[in-house]
Amino acid sequence: MSHEGLLVVVSGPSGAGKGTVLKRLKDSDDSIRFSISATTRTIRQGEKEGLNYFFKTRDEFKSMIEAGQLLEWVEYCGNYYGTPKEYIETTVKEGYDCLLEIEVEGAANVKKAYPDCVLIFILPPSFEELKRRIEKRATEEPEIVAKRLQRAREEMAYIENYDYVIVNDKIEDAVENLRSILKAEKLKLNRNRKMIEQFKH
Amino acid sequence: MSHEGLLVVVSGPSGAGKGTVLKRLKDSDDSIRFSISATTRTIRQGEKEGLNYFFKTRDEFKSMIEAGQLLEWVEYCGNYYGTPKEYIETTVKEGYDCLLEIEVEGAANVKKAYPDCVLIFILPPSFEELKRRIEKRATEEPEIVAKRLQRAREEMAYIENYDYVIVNDKIEDAVENLRSILKAEKLKLNRNRKMIEQFKH
Repeated sequence: MSHEGLLVVVSGPSGAGKGTVLKRLKDSDDSIRFSISATTRTIRQGEKEGLNYFFKTRDEFKSMIEAGQLLEWVEYCGNYYGTPKEYIETTVKEGYDCLLEIEVEGAANVKKAYPDCVLIFILPPSFEELKRRIEKRATEEPEIVAKRLQRAREEMAYIENYDYVIVNDKIEDAVENLRSILKAEKLKLNRNRKMIEQFKH
Repeated sequence: MSHEGLLVVVSGPSGAGKGTVLKRLKDSDDSIRFSISATTRTIRQGEKEGLNYFFKTRDEFKSMIEAGQLLEWVEYCGNYYGTPKEYIETTVKEGYDCLLEIEVEGAANVKKAYPDCVLIFILPPSFEELKRRIEKRATEEPEIVAKRLQRAREEMAYIENYDYVIVNDKIEDAVENLRSILKAEKLKLNRNRKMIEQFKH
């Protein structure tokens, strides 16, 4: 592919439907890849190295942190999780668009490391609908529902960092909107410098 | 419509196929309008006031210039042609996207008057192809072909003012690209302030 791919960073409250929208888009388009995380947690049955995760020992993971090979990382339930830069950079250079679903705090750091990335915030149609979606997950206790809604309100404060906002009312529309953003971004003047220079001569 | 429409400014060398691309897009979408020029030239058979042009006397046209009612204007073959601001502003407020095909010099002025407008440059696949297209128009003398190509080179110098560039290789692709740009632009954070504010409360 002649075109370098896009790094597309997607955030939004839990219950907005990010995962479903991204999976639909990826399944419909061979030129799209998900970013793959590195983790120290044990590999589970059915999981594959380099497909679900890059599985690392704690020492390997710490070396990656020290060598600046991770875009961001967290410790969660005693295991490390992080985003390796190398996979993203290779993917994009090969012409694939790389989708990265990430928390609002991490997204700001990704933008600093890759100023050309595209930041998209996915919203549910309303807070009422978000509440309904979270409650529908039968397992959720009232306190957890309240906590998630509180977190969603906190996340909204970060929306100013984003380039685009998609309201996920109907999934098909949300996927189509995401697809249009990717297409339009590739037509931006700044992403077509080589072609323009060729044309001038 | 809840969403304000976009002002979409399109330029590019003669022979790039701007007109065809824009007409195809407009015919496929009821929410799109062409900007309508004002002119002092005589109305021709089949033309309609307010559809093809706003027909004006020279005095009326001069009053419009003085009152600052025109975005830009030129004198050509003894007649005046200009772009009335009012039609654009009404169209956009009503939620229609307004397409304005205009020379590179004028486009820069439109951007100054309406910083939120979207500037798109349409290119032929190559200079060789542009030459072929211009020569194909049987009536064109060699000097006119050369002049048009020279003008195309001059126009390229203005490409830095534009937000997007579309290469018109296959018309269907160019139309689809234009459509994606319009869709994506409407998802930009800055164009969704009201919705975001409502969501926060």
